[in-house]
Amino acid sequence: MATVINNTMLDAILADVRPLIGRGKVADYIPALACIPGNKLGIAISTVDGQHYSAGDAHERFSIQSISKVLSLIVAMNHYKEEEIWQRVGKDPSGQPFNSLLQLEMEQGIPRNPFINAGALVVCDMLQGRLSAPRQRMLEIVRKLSGKTDISYDAVVARSELDHSARNAAIAWLMKSFGNFHHDVATVLQNYFHYCSLKMSCSELARTFLFLADRGRAPHLTSPVITPLQTRQVNALMATSGMYQNAGEFAWRVGLPAKSGVGGGIVAIVPQEMAIAVWSPELDDAGNSLAGIAALEKLTRQLGYSVY
Amino acid sequence: MATVINNTMLDAILADVRPLIGRGKVADYIPALACIPGNKLGIAISTVDGQHYSAGDAHERFSIQSISKVLSLIVAMNHYKEEEIWQRVGKDPSGQPFNSLLQLEMEQGIPRNPFINAGALVVCDMLQGRLSAPRQRMLEIVRKLSGKTDISYDAVVARSELDHSARNAAIAWLMKSFGNFHHDVATVLQNYFHYCSLKMSCSELARTFLFLADRGRAPHLTSPVITPLQTRQVNALMATSGMYQNAGEFAWRVGLPAKSGVGGGIVAIVPQEMAIAVWSPELDDAGNSLAGIAALEKLTRQLGYSVY
Amino acid sequence: MATVINNTMLDAILADVRPLIGRGKVADYIPALACIPGNKLGIAISTVDGQHYSAGDAHERFSIQSISKVLSLIVAMNHYKEEEIWQRVGKDPSGQPFNSLLQLEMEQGIPRNPFINAGALVVCDMLQGRLSAPRQRMLEIVRKLSGKTDISYDAVVARSELDHSARNAAIAWLMKSFGNFHHDVATVLQNYFHYCSLKMSCSELARTFLFLADRGRAPHLTSPVITPLQTRQVNALMATSGMYQNAGEFAWRVGLPAKSGVGGGIVAIVPQEMAIAVWSPELDDAGNSLAGIAALEKLTRQLGYSVY
Amino acid sequence: MATVINNTMLDAILADVRPLIGRGKVADYIPALACIPGNKLGIAISTVDGQHYSAGDAHERFSIQSISKVLSLIVAMNHYKEEEIWQRVGKDPSGQPFNSLLQLEMEQGIPRNPFINAGALVVCDMLQGRLSAPRQRMLEIVRKLSGKTDISYDAVVARSELDHSARNAAIAWLMKSFGNFHHDVATVLQNYFHYCSLKMSCSELARTFLFLADRGRAPHLTSPVITPLQTRQVNALMATSGMYQNAGEFAWRVGLPAKSGVGGGIVAIVPQEMAIAVWSPELDDAGNSLAGIAALEKLTRQLGYSVY
Repeated sequence: MATVINNTMLDAILADVRPLIGRGKVADYIPALACIPGNKLGIAISTVDGQHYSAGDAHERFSIQSISKVLSLIVAMNHYKEEEIWQRVGKDPSGQPFNSLLQLEMEQGIPRNPFINAGALVVCDMLQGRLSAPRQRMLEIVRKLSGKTDISYDAVVARSELDHSARNAAIAWLMKSFGNFHHDVATVLQNYFHYCSLKMSCSELARTFLFLADRGRAPHLTSPVITPLQTRQVNALMATSGMYQNAGEFAWRVGLPAKSGVGGGIVAIVPQEMAIAVWSPELDDAGNSLAGIAALEKLTRQLGYSVY
Repeated sequence: MATVINNTMLDAILADVRPLIGRGKVADYIPALACIPGNKLGIAISTVDGQHYSAGDAHERFSIQSISKVLSLIVAMNHYKEEEIWQRVGKDPSGQPFNSLLQLEMEQGIPRNPFINAGALVVCDMLQGRLSAPRQRMLEIVRKLSGKTDISYDAVVARSELDHSARNAAIAWLMKSFGNFHHDVATVLQNYFHYCSLKMSCSELARTFLFLADRGRAPHLTSPVITPLQTRQVNALMATSGMYQNAGEFAWRVGLPAKSGVGGGIVAIVPQEMAIAVWSPELDDAGNSLAGIAALEKLTRQLGYSVY
Repeated sequence: MATVINNTMLDAILADVRPLIGRGKVADYIPALACIPGNKLGIAISTVDGQHYSAGDAHERFSIQSISKVLSLIVAMNHYKEEEIWQRVGKDPSGQPFNSLLQLEMEQGIPRNPFINAGALVVCDMLQGRLSAPRQRMLEIVRKLSGKTDISYDAVVARSELDHSARNAAIAWLMKSFGNFHHDVATVLQNYFHYCSLKMSCSELARTFLFLADRGRAPHLTSPVITPLQTRQVNALMATSGMYQNAGEFAWRVGLPAKSGVGGGIVAIVPQEMAIAVWSPELDDAGNSLAGIAALEKLTRQLGYSVY
Repeated sequence: MATVINNTMLDAILADVRPLIGRGKVADYIPALACIPGNKLGIAISTVDGQHYSAGDAHERFSIQSISKVLSLIVAMNHYKEEEIWQRVGKDPSGQPFNSLLQLEMEQGIPRNPFINAGALVVCDMLQGRLSAPRQRMLEIVRKLSGKTDISYDAVVARSELDHSARNAAIAWLMKSFGNFHHDVATVLQNYFHYCSLKMSCSELARTFLFLADRGRAPHLTSPVITPLQTRQVNALMATSGMYQNAGEFAWRVGLPAKSGVGGGIVAIVPQEMAIAVWSPELDDAGNSLAGIAALEKLTRQLGYSVY
């Protein structure tokens, strides 16, 4: 590794990308997200050898939104056999906006992958079938992975999402019409929006997702979260479908498996090395954090990180 | 590395996947491809430390088809500035079949990436603008990279493609209607089909693409083919768009940047380690070599290779 | 008029088309429709000068299904100003299957016309806003127009539709996401399915729709149902969008404004002359009554009827 | 007929709609059309009982553009059996812009109807197969129908179209890829653009198309142009597909079979009564003459004309 990571270096990267603030757009489809200040900027790194680095607003919690889609997939992988999951959702990039119905209709209600809304809703529908209290269970998992017992849902955000849930309801009903949605739509949407409303900081996200950099093992837990093979598979899915329709552009610029959320967070994985989390609420046209991607690009260029 | 590579091990892998032969379908859209025996099966590996391994029909030449799209992109990267290329073609997965016009129409004639037909045609249109003899030049490059001076175009295949070129002509004309195609359609199609008709063996492909595993340097050449950064970028593009609409499924199963062709060949890259080429003419529904993917999956599982 | 209409002639037409029975397919998306015998065949005519003719199963009631979309539009035209209606739904052929979401998504939740499901659901949403008891009101209207006080909803069919309403729910929710659906989805679907479940015979349908052949006036009612201009407009809409995606083929073969339903009924209008209703439950690929269209074609050819 | 037609009345209608000039947009995709003054406005009527009326610029020739698609269909109907034509082109509204490839790709190269570009190109491809000199033959027909021997192609417009023909070339090649285009693309495009470039006045158009109002007979010709049944069929096709994607809106407002061209002309038929031609070069969003439609609407409302 040519350069050594330290907090000063992270400070410098944030300083470099801060001028981008103002060029993106804070998600405004629900009031509870629209009111987040656009100038928040944070980064945190957790390494497999136990180091933690951070800079900027790395300890302020925000709405993780679609980053939760990785967590719900992990939980599903713990409760369902591989073929049970992948007969109901694909593994390929969609090439469409994350909330599109077009492709879903043409492909008979089978979502392209678990990281677009339709796919995540199918995953939540699965969880509803095997977990007695899906919301409580997710909290337990996130608290265990992050080591923070006060992580919780943002009731205001969850409520706000539910008040603006018409399109996701349409997606769920369309899948139901094809037989690929089994439980009550309103109940599953409730869970889905609660997962999206999880409030976590960059620092907590980096710790939580460290297992994806460490062959499925979280350092402070005795049993692995998932197997080494599953870890590679989830990372592969993030690499090809984790950044909405800009997976290719992101791979080109950053070269790491990653998952973003419209709250402005991104979690990226350097396999065998570290988990990185960035946060900047202003989004680009595809719904990814504009300054967040730039910070990851700077960091990986500087450190020579890229899986490719 | 847990296992040592050797020819015996490659033989065993081919024996393992050979039962898949009969489950796919040899490309039949042109007669010259349809007549290839479906039971051909070969694999070859070239490592950055100078080793070469092979098994099966690794020394028999076949039509590399879309694998040539990587080569034409490399040539374009040598003759055009980055922004000149990427304002005319995107970097993201298309989510559509490789010869679809639908997306191209909706996105105003800008192809999603250079590995679908539309994107490769735009790249060929670029080459037409800066190379005095695009076909001769490509031959020189491939011969230099592979070290084999007798590599050549298959005139019968090129002719056959041209006789069945209506859809690619439609794609080129549609891009012309949007101002994203500058030269004579028939001329550029001629070049494009010649590139597709290149005949190479697995062994030659592994050597030719070794530079993508070695930061852009071909071992026997004094000057690098592309820069280390460009190497990572091309690999990133292969990882997200190299396997037609099955990039995600392939990443999940194999976990390597790769490019396939309807001739049944696949080239995969283990960064910093090796280039792998497989060949089996029978294709799956997405147009990728069925037994070829299975062989790569076995190999990478066995060796623990995956970029993720 | 070259030929005189009489019941014998209608009998002959039914005999001519009866051999087509067996070539179509009874609608099977809900059990309550799937169990209807495919060999039912009836025709009825009501003329503006007070004559009534019929043949076959003309007096047996069946589920009028989408034919009710004309009635709900008529009721909306009685309760809303022209611009209030047409800012929420278009007047043009959709070119898509009747329950497609694709176009609805691309066109921001504005259905192409009131005779596809999405459009009819918007109309029902309007009725919910201005009628105190939309289901009771529709019954009153149909009973008044037909002169039959025992016409009613088929509770089994309505229930069965509701049990299979996922796709229509998806359509309604998608429109809600674009702000083009104002009331409770479940409530409006209930009304919509009840309208579809109306049971009427050919004879009753011909009488009910006679006002569309008589400049908006029903012979036995003192006040007009709609104005002469509105009558021409509704007929125009039926002519261009009344037969799902086969409006052009139907115009070519039959040449009359018409509306079909998946129960196998079709109502056709000869302006200034008569209303015709046919019934044969087996449908063609577009969802229109196969033998029903053939009977209308024979009748119009024989009588020289065509608006074109 | 409540009102008597006369030139004064037509003058009044033109005066009424003239204020609309300035609200539309002259077709600008080729320079030769873009230079036409937007304030041209003309109307002409030919009746089956031998009367001719006109007002405004009714005697100035303009580019008839897509109105020629009716003429080429008529010629095809004279040279091919019914089933030969309709197995290669449909009869239904497309619901898409007139030059869309999307639907054509999804429907395997079979255009929805002969009045969108793809359909008209298929018709021209047919003519190329049975006429020795398709361009000369069309001139003869138009001159015979109109009685004007100096009607001719506008070479500048035809040339200009050919210089901007990329999209139509894409359409033709796409159909060729599906086996639905048999002759040389460039040759057929040449014919197609020549037909579009025909220069005719409103007065000449009304006379030329009078046979569609008179059961297929042109008053001054001994043999019928087409049969009475074919006449109804062509009118039906115009009614459902003659006004690009606004067939329904036009039927609602005007209620007559009609065909428009991007030169700003519209021909409308009152069956058994008359042919009407209007001209105003400014187009609405769908590509139809804005003031032209308004003039037809006023005229038909005033006279109580509507087929519905």
